[in-house]
Amino acid sequence: MENEIEIIDFILKNNAEAILEKLDDIHPVDFLEALSSYHGEAVEVLEKLPDDYIALLIDEAEDDEKYGLLSLFSQNRKNNIISEMSSDELVDLLRNIDEDEKESIILKMDKEDAKEVKELLEYDPDSAGGIMATEFLSVKDNMTVDEVIKFLRDNAPDSETPYYIYVLDDYDVLKGVVPLRDIVISDAQTIVKDIMIEKVITVPVQMDQEDVGNIFDKYGFMAVPVTDDFGVMLGIITIDDIVEILKDEHTEDLYRLAGLDESEKISGSVKSSIKSRLPWLIVNLGTAILAAATVSLFENTIEKIVALATFMPIVAGMGGNAGTQTLTMIIRGIALGELNFENEKEVLKKEILVGLVNGTCLGIIVATLGLLWVGNPVFGLVIGIAMFLNLVIATIAGYFVPLILKKINVDPALASGVFVTTVTDVLGFFFFLGLATLMINFLI
Amino acid sequence: MENEIEIIDFILKNNAEAILEKLDDIHPVDFLEALSSYHGEAVEVLEKLPDDYIALLIDEAEDDEKYGLLSLFSQNRKNNIISEMSSDELVDLLRNIDEDEKESIILKMDKEDAKEVKELLEYDPDSAGGIMATEFLSVKDNMTVDEVIKFLRDNAPDSETPYYIYVLDDYDVLKGVVPLRDIVISDAQTIVKDIMIEKVITVPVQMDQEDVGNIFDKYGFMAVPVTDDFGVMLGIITIDDIVEILKDEHTEDLYRLAGLDESEKISGSVKSSIKSRLPWLIVNLGTAILAAATVSLFENTIEKIVALATFMPIVAGMGGNAGTQTLTMIIRGIALGELNFENEKEVLKKEILVGLVNGTCLGIIVATLGLLWVGNPVFGLVIGIAMFLNLVIATIAGYFVPLILKKINVDPALASGVFVTTVTDVLGFFFFLGLATLMINFLI
Repeated sequence: MENEIEIIDFILKNNAEAILEKLDDIHPVDFLEALSSYHGEAVEVLEKLPDDYIALLIDEAEDDEKYGLLSLFSQNRKNNIISEMSSDELVDLLRNIDEDEKESIILKMDKEDAKEVKELLEYDPDSAGGIMATEFLSVKDNMTVDEVIKFLRDNAPDSETPYYIYVLDDYDVLKGVVPLRDIVISDAQTIVKDIMIEKVITVPVQMDQEDVGNIFDKYGFMAVPVTDDFGVMLGIITIDDIVEILKDEHTEDLYRLAGLDESEKISGSVKSSIKSRLPWLIVNLGTAILAAATVSLFENTIEKIVALATFMPIVAGMGGNAGTQTLTMIIRGIALGELNFENEKEVLKKEILVGLVNGTCLGIIVATLGLLWVGNPVFGLVIGIAMFLNLVIATIAGYFVPLILKKINVDPALASGVFVTTVTDVLGFFFFLGLATLMINFLI
Repeated sequence: MENEIEIIDFILKNNAEAILEKLDDIHPVDFLEALSSYHGEAVEVLEKLPDDYIALLIDEAEDDEKYGLLSLFSQNRKNNIISEMSSDELVDLLRNIDEDEKESIILKMDKEDAKEVKELLEYDPDSAGGIMATEFLSVKDNMTVDEVIKFLRDNAPDSETPYYIYVLDDYDVLKGVVPLRDIVISDAQTIVKDIMIEKVITVPVQMDQEDVGNIFDKYGFMAVPVTDDFGVMLGIITIDDIVEILKDEHTEDLYRLAGLDESEKISGSVKSSIKSRLPWLIVNLGTAILAAATVSLFENTIEKIVALATFMPIVAGMGGNAGTQTLTMIIRGIALGELNFENEKEVLKKEILVGLVNGTCLGIIVATLGLLWVGNPVFGLVIGIAMFLNLVIATIAGYFVPLILKKINVDPALASGVFVTTVTDVLGFFFFLGLATLMINFLI
């Protein structure tokens, strides 16, 4: 294996033919890495590469770097490179540049491609339509295997996934699919109709990308056709895109739960990190002030029994932990499609029971702790009951908050945490300090 | 599309030949769903299916259901079904049953298969060796395309991934790979050596499955060969397995961060949920008690200035939020391989700067708030400084805790949260109440 410097060196020193042969063995991802550690002018290296390899490099580059690569070239080469790119990757590039640049690129494309790209740009970027590619192999059901192979020889290199061949009727309605391996192992005179799989699982063009990911996970497909309401095949989604989407959705979930902007990068700038985190901290400050205001209602009681201040963080904190457990379960259940109309009630019943049992166990533990620490059984009772109530409320809030957010179309991962901890903080303090106020005569 | 009852009904009422044709159009996943909503005896339906389809059903079933399906059959049919299963799925099944049952299944397998399965069972279940399948298509580099196609006609249906054909030498060392589509579009007399890709990206058999997932994500492969230290090809990992692994790793990360056992299921029993959550709540109770003990050191101060109790939750809570932001960033960076020796110091510098800036902003906000609420500028100063210090500590803890856990081989997602919030709670209270105690003469 060569190291990165050698790759770049080879390109600079050799002619087109030698480069072409060399590139067969260099994955575009590795080439991009080599290029990023090269200190000279990138354009001098890139200009020696063929158009189709540059299209591959742009395909593999990060979304926000794609246009930078393309704009290194003359207008003429730009057009050639764009015509080599797959439609879904071109759309990703166009989504990341400003309107004027987008228009000028589309204007220079040939008419049919331009129309296709414009249509793709209309779809929600997070929907099946927004991630599909329009390049796929389609044949008619009366063709023979031999005819299909001839067709593949003429067309395959342009298509994104050559593992399935789709069978369409005259109106482009999807009739069936033939895996490439069945083409290889069938006799030349076999008719497509006889070997195609007729019941094809498809995804509707509006489907959310996370649900598309769940279908890939469920069935283990390599690619899935995308159809409109009439069964007309519009494009395909391949599993390599799904792996990237799953990774991004995962990062987004984790980040949103923690109050980070999903665009924050670990090696990003200080400024972008502050922009990602400070607003969320200020939102949380708001909820912390609500909790503080609750405590301030009971300052008189705390003045008389200062041990309450010591135990305050326990009740509120444990409620927050229990609420987070439930809401994480629910958010994941929603994302994986495991929580649905059929089991919603069952799950609620289970969560309440779990809250009751965990609340009872922890209530007894902290009641004992309170009794031993302060030496007053009523103190133990007050903190035990407050803990019990807060844990039950925590599981109920952890259940309802994400579901309600989902119903009003807010991402549950984004806002559930702050709502649930507000509930558990405010009510935790309220139960504990309120009960103590009621029982104050037994506590002094 | 038929509904689920119709599928089962059809199987029960028809003969083997009609069933065979029907099954072509029913994905095993859908069959399993139909079976799970059928109220009669599953075995009566299953017995009418061919061995290879039952093997597919077991492949697609959840790990803990695989053996239940298999054990419905007679010993003889069991053996036939097992011989139809792919090696990686068989290993998954064997990992989920007890030693005696495992031994008895392996004893009844043919010698070569038994040896292979035993070897696979030796690998760490979360490593490349633990998830690879040993069925792949291999040819020699001097074969012609025509010979390869003949070979495929004889062997393809048994292989897990027929999209790539691997080229091995006489010692099984991997020499190259030919995508199936290149076989289809090449002339019959072309020699494999002339069309194979020579620089194949492989994964070592010991590699952790999460790192394998990152390689799939990086390169967009459909399958990757697994090799030993001598370059001998041992098996392949296909992308559909990776999608499942990524989903499971994601669930594991989210659950561990929230203090849930990764085996907890949303529709599981109350008992299993309590077993998953209560231990974690008790661990957190321990840290809450530590925080409470810190507060109790300052009960004298709180007794004199009860407004401290009101502001306590703000300082500790905000520290927790800021610490969670950093640790989530670091945990994700570790998982994706984006945090490494090269940028570790850069990232630390950035996190400290972010802590300083966010700490200053929030310090000023709460200082103003404290001043207005309590009407004493020293009170504002005390809470402002405590907030600033706690936010800086929080980012530093959020950086180091996951990295240290990783270095001592504890999953950072599992324990980072509890350590970081212990630090931010204890130090938050300590800074705030400690400063107040030092400045007590200016506060009363």
